[in-house]
Amino acid sequence: MVASSGTRVRAAVVGTGLIGGSILLRLHRAGLDVTGWDPDPATRLAARDAGVPAPDELTAAVAGRYVVFLCGPLPTLPETLLTVAAATGGECVLTDVGSTKGGLAAFAAAHGLTHRFVPGHPMAGTDRAGLGAAEPDLLTGAAWVLCPSAGPGLPAFRWLTGLLGEVFQARVVPMAADRHDAVAALASHVPHLLAGALAGAVDRSALRDAVLALAAGSFRDGTRVAGTPPERTANMLLGNREHVLRELAGVRSFLDELAGALADADAGALTAGYRDARATRTALTGRAFTEIHRSFPADTGSDHGDGGDHGTGGDHGDGGRDGGGPGADGGREELDFLLGIGAAGGHLSRCRISGTAVEYTAHKPAGEMERG
Amino acid sequence: MVASSGTRVRAAVVGTGLIGGSILLRLHRAGLDVTGWDPDPATRLAARDAGVPAPDELTAAVAGRYVVFLCGPLPTLPETLLTVAAATGGECVLTDVGSTKGGLAAFAAAHGLTHRFVPGHPMAGTDRAGLGAAEPDLLTGAAWVLCPSAGPGLPAFRWLTGLLGEVFQARVVPMAADRHDAVAALASHVPHLLAGALAGAVDRSALRDAVLALAAGSFRDGTRVAGTPPERTANMLLGNREHVLRELAGVRSFLDELAGALADADAGALTAGYRDARATRTALTGRAFTEIHRSFPADTGSDHGDGGDHGTGGDHGDGGRDGGGPGADGGREELDFLLGIGAAGGHLSRCRISGTAVEYTAHKPAGEMERG
Repeated sequence: MVASSGTRVRAAVVGTGLIGGSILLRLHRAGLDVTGWDPDPATRLAARDAGVPAPDELTAAVAGRYVVFLCGPLPTLPETLLTVAAATGGECVLTDVGSTKGGLAAFAAAHGLTHRFVPGHPMAGTDRAGLGAAEPDLLTGAAWVLCPSAGPGLPAFRWLTGLLGEVFQARVVPMAADRHDAVAALASHVPHLLAGALAGAVDRSALRDAVLALAAGSFRDGTRVAGTPPERTANMLLGNREHVLRELAGVRSFLDELAGALADADAGALTAGYRDARATRTALTGRAFTEIHRSFPADTGSDHGDGGDHGTGGDHGDGGRDGGGPGADGGREELDFLLGIGAAGGHLSRCRISGTAVEYTAHKPAGEMERG
Repeated sequence: MVASSGTRVRAAVVGTGLIGGSILLRLHRAGLDVTGWDPDPATRLAARDAGVPAPDELTAAVAGRYVVFLCGPLPTLPETLLTVAAATGGECVLTDVGSTKGGLAAFAAAHGLTHRFVPGHPMAGTDRAGLGAAEPDLLTGAAWVLCPSAGPGLPAFRWLTGLLGEVFQARVVPMAADRHDAVAALASHVPHLLAGALAGAVDRSALRDAVLALAAGSFRDGTRVAGTPPERTANMLLGNREHVLRELAGVRSFLDELAGALADADAGALTAGYRDARATRTALTGRAFTEIHRSFPADTGSDHGDGGDHGTGGDHGDGGRDGGGPGADGGREELDFLLGIGAAGGHLSRCRISGTAVEYTAHKPAGEMERG
């Protein structure tokens, strides 16, 4: 990717395991000037073998970079955020890929980093781990949550949205951090609990070996994420504890209804429950979108977007952040638009910034068919 | 498939929806002389369009057949079994593909059909339905439970095992009917309950649209079978009610433990639970087998296996059932061997019958690696 000034964007990825490694490989393939860093020396060596510079020191890896992806384990992110913020210029955009957003967003705000930290969460993964399992296309086309904030944080959000759309063909879902955590609890964390319960119960069952022999689609699908490294899953759940327990209660309640109908041999109630379940499953696989283009004013001459007072040397790109300040209302209208897109189940595919305007390409779910 | 006598095996499939239709198309492609029947006239027409004879009358479709697959909805199977048994010769092998086996096996025994009815359950499917969704390869290589019984029922089991191994490359899992139902509860039915609860809870949630936007692997996988036609799922669960509720209790109990560890923020307990879950998931994907060959005596001159006193005309095959009587002990040793294979999580890939012996090719799980 070449910035509007004609220079290559300088990026860094900190924590090059499955997700970070996949981001690293993709940015590298897209032609960005990218460095990687990982606490594990063997992983740094593997990155170099893949042709990506991976200095031994974290600060050397991020110095002079225009964007840094923080991809280490969830519990390490606050400390890493502060370290990287201190080692980079004030215009360097920071983002993460952690599975919960509320805690880190609040931490960043408390440390005065809201103007350049954009909490992020790409919704993809596998049950494998490490740079060896990373693939440049792992995140291609993925839903990728970014949490915008009004005011001085908007330019960083816009620029990162543009980058993710261009390099990853990401479907960027704008969402407030707390709302993300509630949604992710249902969309990802509770499913991990169910998968663990199913696989764990079979592990204890006297029927285990025979179950493995008969395991077909429903069991294989329903337990896949139980193959994830246990520590990673535990960290994910603990990082979103309250939301997960709250949403689990709703799932348990529906399970109680289904089991109650089954115990009562009430075919009507059982079928009705599955009809509701199927409606959502059908909506998931049959989503259609309407494309929308929306522009908002982007102040010029603000203290953002000059793109030239950070980094080392003069060969880093500004990636189109010229004139990227928030609008006259502090970006409130823009923020409302963005959060509305996310709440409706939509996403952004593009964000282009000119001197005085920002233009989004958004995709809103088209009206769903009537449900039976 | 050509029988040992050089004639084509004559087969019929009753109920040509997703599973029955897939069996029909596969048998047809394998060169068997096969007919189909479905209560729906349009489905019969579609079968004819696919080049398969599909008479309007059920009795015409099954008369003179050497094997009949009963593939209609679960609640219809007892009546269909009696109808087809009455319309076919005493040597015609009958089998079904229903998701539970205990009830129908007992029904068949009560009606004196054990010697030719072999309860069956191929472990495959999709969330679609109907002959239009059927594919000749849907069941290729699938685990396919058959329930053998000692004594006069063994020859039918052997012959059907050979047919399924040859035509479908099936992994035939021998299992007593009641045990199948307990195992299927864990391997398939409880996963359907969890999928329904997850999709149903999201359907009711105010976060629904946003969840659909973020749904990644764990949610998509975990809800896939919630897309199955609701009546089919309800029938399946109701047909195995007691086993499903019993096995669900074990899964709930593990879920309680995980949720309790999460509520207590007990990372150690949560990780330990997921370590157990992962052990079973890893065992599922990394199964290795040892091939075994075992022979048993097959009495000649019994009242089974003469393969010549049924059907219309003389052009139907006996499929190698010559001399297929049970051994001197009524097949007890053979049955123990078979059920042992299924209980250990193994399967059969081949069954060959000569005049005085039956030889199985079986695959037993190799010793698993030590678990951490």
